[in-house]
Amino acid sequence: MPSRADCQALDRSDPLAALREQFDLPPGLIYLDGNSLGPLPRATAARLQAVVQQEWGRGLIRSWNTAGWIDQPRRVGDAIGRLVGAAPGEVMVADSTSVNLHKVLSVALRLVRGRDPQALRRVVLSERGNFPTDLYIAETLAAEQGFALELVDGDAIGGAAAERLAGTRGADVAVLMLTQVDYRSGALHDMAAVTRAAHAAGALVVWDLAHSAGALPVDLRGADADFAIGCGYKYLNGGPGAPAFLWVHPRHLAAMAQQAIHQPLSGWIGHAAPFEFTPGYRPADGIAQFLCGTPAVLSLAALACGVDTLAAAEPLGGLPALRAKSVALTSLFIELVESRCGGHGLRLVTPREAPRRGSQVSFAHPTGGYAIVQALIERGVIGDFRAPDVLRFGFTPLTLRFVDVWDAVEQLVQVLETGEWRDPRFHRRATVT
Amino acid sequence: MPSRADCQALDRSDPLAALREQFDLPPGLIYLDGNSLGPLPRATAARLQAVVQQEWGRGLIRSWNTAGWIDQPRRVGDAIGRLVGAAPGEVMVADSTSVNLHKVLSVALRLVRGRDPQALRRVVLSERGNFPTDLYIAETLAAEQGFALELVDGDAIGGAAAERLAGTRGADVAVLMLTQVDYRSGALHDMAAVTRAAHAAGALVVWDLAHSAGALPVDLRGADADFAIGCGYKYLNGGPGAPAFLWVHPRHLAAMAQQAIHQPLSGWIGHAAPFEFTPGYRPADGIAQFLCGTPAVLSLAALACGVDTLAAAEPLGGLPALRAKSVALTSLFIELVESRCGGHGLRLVTPREAPRRGSQVSFAHPTGGYAIVQALIERGVIGDFRAPDVLRFGFTPLTLRFVDVWDAVEQLVQVLETGEWRDPRFHRRATVT
Repeated sequence: MPSRADCQALDRSDPLAALREQFDLPPGLIYLDGNSLGPLPRATAARLQAVVQQEWGRGLIRSWNTAGWIDQPRRVGDAIGRLVGAAPGEVMVADSTSVNLHKVLSVALRLVRGRDPQALRRVVLSERGNFPTDLYIAETLAAEQGFALELVDGDAIGGAAAERLAGTRGADVAVLMLTQVDYRSGALHDMAAVTRAAHAAGALVVWDLAHSAGALPVDLRGADADFAIGCGYKYLNGGPGAPAFLWVHPRHLAAMAQQAIHQPLSGWIGHAAPFEFTPGYRPADGIAQFLCGTPAVLSLAALACGVDTLAAAEPLGGLPALRAKSVALTSLFIELVESRCGGHGLRLVTPREAPRRGSQVSFAHPTGGYAIVQALIERGVIGDFRAPDVLRFGFTPLTLRFVDVWDAVEQLVQVLETGEWRDPRFHRRATVT
Repeated sequence: MPSRADCQALDRSDPLAALREQFDLPPGLIYLDGNSLGPLPRATAARLQAVVQQEWGRGLIRSWNTAGWIDQPRRVGDAIGRLVGAAPGEVMVADSTSVNLHKVLSVALRLVRGRDPQALRRVVLSERGNFPTDLYIAETLAAEQGFALELVDGDAIGGAAAERLAGTRGADVAVLMLTQVDYRSGALHDMAAVTRAAHAAGALVVWDLAHSAGALPVDLRGADADFAIGCGYKYLNGGPGAPAFLWVHPRHLAAMAQQAIHQPLSGWIGHAAPFEFTPGYRPADGIAQFLCGTPAVLSLAALACGVDTLAAAEPLGGLPALRAKSVALTSLFIELVESRCGGHGLRLVTPREAPRRGSQVSFAHPTGGYAIVQALIERGVIGDFRAPDVLRFGFTPLTLRFVDVWDAVEQLVQVLETGEWRDPRFHRRATVT
C-alpha cells in the first residue's frame, strides 16, 4: 500500500501538476465533486468582469457584433468539439442538456420513422440507471411520437443493451440512448463497440457525454456516433448551470435537409436568416439549426474559460495524459479505501477494471451513505451522495494531487473509525444532495 | 415645441430622476435600445463577482443549498411576478423565451384538445408581425400537434385578431398567441379586452410580455390571462441572453393535474422529487413543473440585479409612475421628430395615441432606415433597425432623461440635414441588426 510520502513523490514527478494552478481552489479543501460542479478557473472572474463591464456596460447592444457575442455558441462549441472528436463547426453550445436531448432525440426518432413507414421500430432503449433527466425527457418524447421507452439494467460495457439489440430481438429498437459514464456507478461504456452493436441492429445512438466530456478522450467521429449532448458545468468547469452542447453527425444533418425534418425547438437563432425577421421558419444550415433562443452571453463566457483549462493540457499530452492520471488517481483511491476501511460496510460500485470506469469512484454503504458524505464534508473532503446508497467521489485530473487522494482516504478512515457519521446532524437531508 | 431648457426643467422636477443612478451608463451616450438589451445595473458586476468567487469558488457544490441556488428560479420569478400581476409562487425563471413558449403553447393546445375531442378547434391564431421566434415555435408545434398556425395583420388594439375571433368565425380557434407590445411598431394590445374576446370565442390566450414586462403595468391576474412568457434581458435589465420567465394561470395548472397533462420538456428540475433520482417522471406541483434543466445560476444572479432596479421604483410609484414618464418621453420624442425632421421621409409607425403604444417609438423610412440608425450610433445615439424599413427607439424610463430625448432628436436632425447617412459606410450590414 502506498504511503503519504509515496503520494507526494508521485505529485513531484507528475507532468500535469502545474495545471492545478489554473484554478482558484479553497485552501484546505479536497474537492472530489468536480463531476457534479467543476471548480472555478482563475480566469473566469476577470473574464466575466470584462464581459459585464466592458462588453455589456460600455458596448451595450453593439457587442452582439463587436464582441462577437453572436458567434459564441459556435466558438465555444468548436473548443468543446476538439475534446470530443468532432470537427470544427459540428458542435454548438445552447440551452441545457435536457433541452438538447429533447432536440436530438426528437430528430433521431423522426429519421428512424422516415425509413420505417410501417413503424416496426417502436422502442427507445436505455438503462434504468441512466441519469433521470434523460429518462424523463425520453419518456415524454417517446410517448408523444408513438414510441415506448424501454429500460434495461445496464453494466459497464453495455452488456444488457447489447444483448437486447442482438439478433432479431433488436429489430424493434429505433434509438439507443446512453450516458457514456454512469453518473452513479462511474461505469464507462465502450462508445465504438456499443455504437457498432446498435448500428448492426439498425438503431441510432444518442450519447450523453455529461460525465465523459473533458474527463477522458471521446471520439465521436471515430466511434461513428449519431448524436451527442453534454454538460458544461462538470468536467468542462463552466460554472453552475452552464449551458450545454450538442453534436449531430453530418450524415444526419444531410438527411434532415433532404427529408425536411427539423428539430422541434425552432427558435429564431436557429433560423437561416434570423435578422431578416420573416414570419416563416427556415432552418439554418448544419448544426446551427439546433440553436433556439438568444445565446446566454454571460454563461457562455464563463464556459469558454472552463473549456480553456482543458485546452491548456494539450501541450502536455491532452486528454490521453489526463486520462492516464485520472486512472492512477481512481486506482489509488480504490486501493487505499479497500485496504484501510475494511469492515465498515463499504462496497465498491465502480468497475474495478480501469478501462471500464470513468473519472469517479463510488462505494455503496447499507445505511450510512448520506451521513458519511456529510461527515467528510465537515472535515473538508467534498464528495456527494446519490440515492439510494451511493457515496460518489469524482477525480478531476486537472486539479487533484495524489496526496489529496491519500488525505481524503485518511479522513474517511477517521469518519468510519470514530463512528462520528452516526451523529444525527449528519442525517438531516438538505434540499440538494 | 418644447426647448432644450424646457426638457432640463422637466428633468429637474422628475421624481424618478434618481433611479438613473442605479445604472452604469457610458458617458456621452444616449441609449435608446433598452428594449433590445437593457443597460448594466451598477449592482450587477459586484454581485456576479460574489457569486463567482464566493459562492462558486469557495462554496462549490455546497452552494446549491447554502447560497440558495436551487431556489433562484422561484425567487427571481416572484420578483418578476410583482411586475406582471402574478401572485407569489406563480412565476418561474427558466430557459429562453422561445423554449418557454414551446412549453406553454404545447400545454395550451393539449388542454384545448382535451375538451374538444372532435378537434373542431384547429387554429393557432397570431399576428403576421409577431416576433418571428414566436411564430417559428408555434409553426412547428402546431404542425406537430395537428393544428394550423394562422396569421392576421395586427393593429394596436388587436382589431384583426378580435374580428377573426368574433361570432361563429372564432369557433375554430384553439389558442390566440400575441405579444403584448409589438417589437417593431410598439403597438400595445389591451390585454384584458383581447383576453375577454378570446375567452368569449372559447379560445385560450398565450401572452408574450417581452416588450411589456418592466416597461408598463401588466396585470395577468386582473386580465384573466391564461399563459404568459417573457424576456429577461430587455426592460428587466438582466444582461445579454438572460433567462426568461413563464406564468400559467392556476386554473390551468389544476386542469393539467386532473388530466395528467404535462409540459413536453420534462426535465429533472421540474420533477416532483429531483434528488430521489427515480426513473419515472412525475411533475412537480404548480408552476415548478415548467422547470427543465439545471438552473443557470450566473445568469439568474445577473437577472435578479436587473429586476431589483425596477423594485427600487416601488416607493416612487412603481410601474404606473414609470409608465407615466415613459408616455411623456415617447410623446416628446414624437412631437420633436415630427416638428423638426419634416420632409426627410420619416413616417410614424407607432400609434400616436399614448394608451395604444408601449415604451418605444418607431419610424419607417423608405430607403435609409438601416443607414440612419448607423449614422446615429456613430453620433452616440443608439437605437436599432428592424427589417424591412423601421428605425426603432426604446425609452427606458428608469434611465432616460427628457434632455436625452431632446439631444437624440438634435442628432437625428443633423444626420438627416447633412445627408451623412448616405455615406456607403453606413450601409454595410452587420451580422446582428
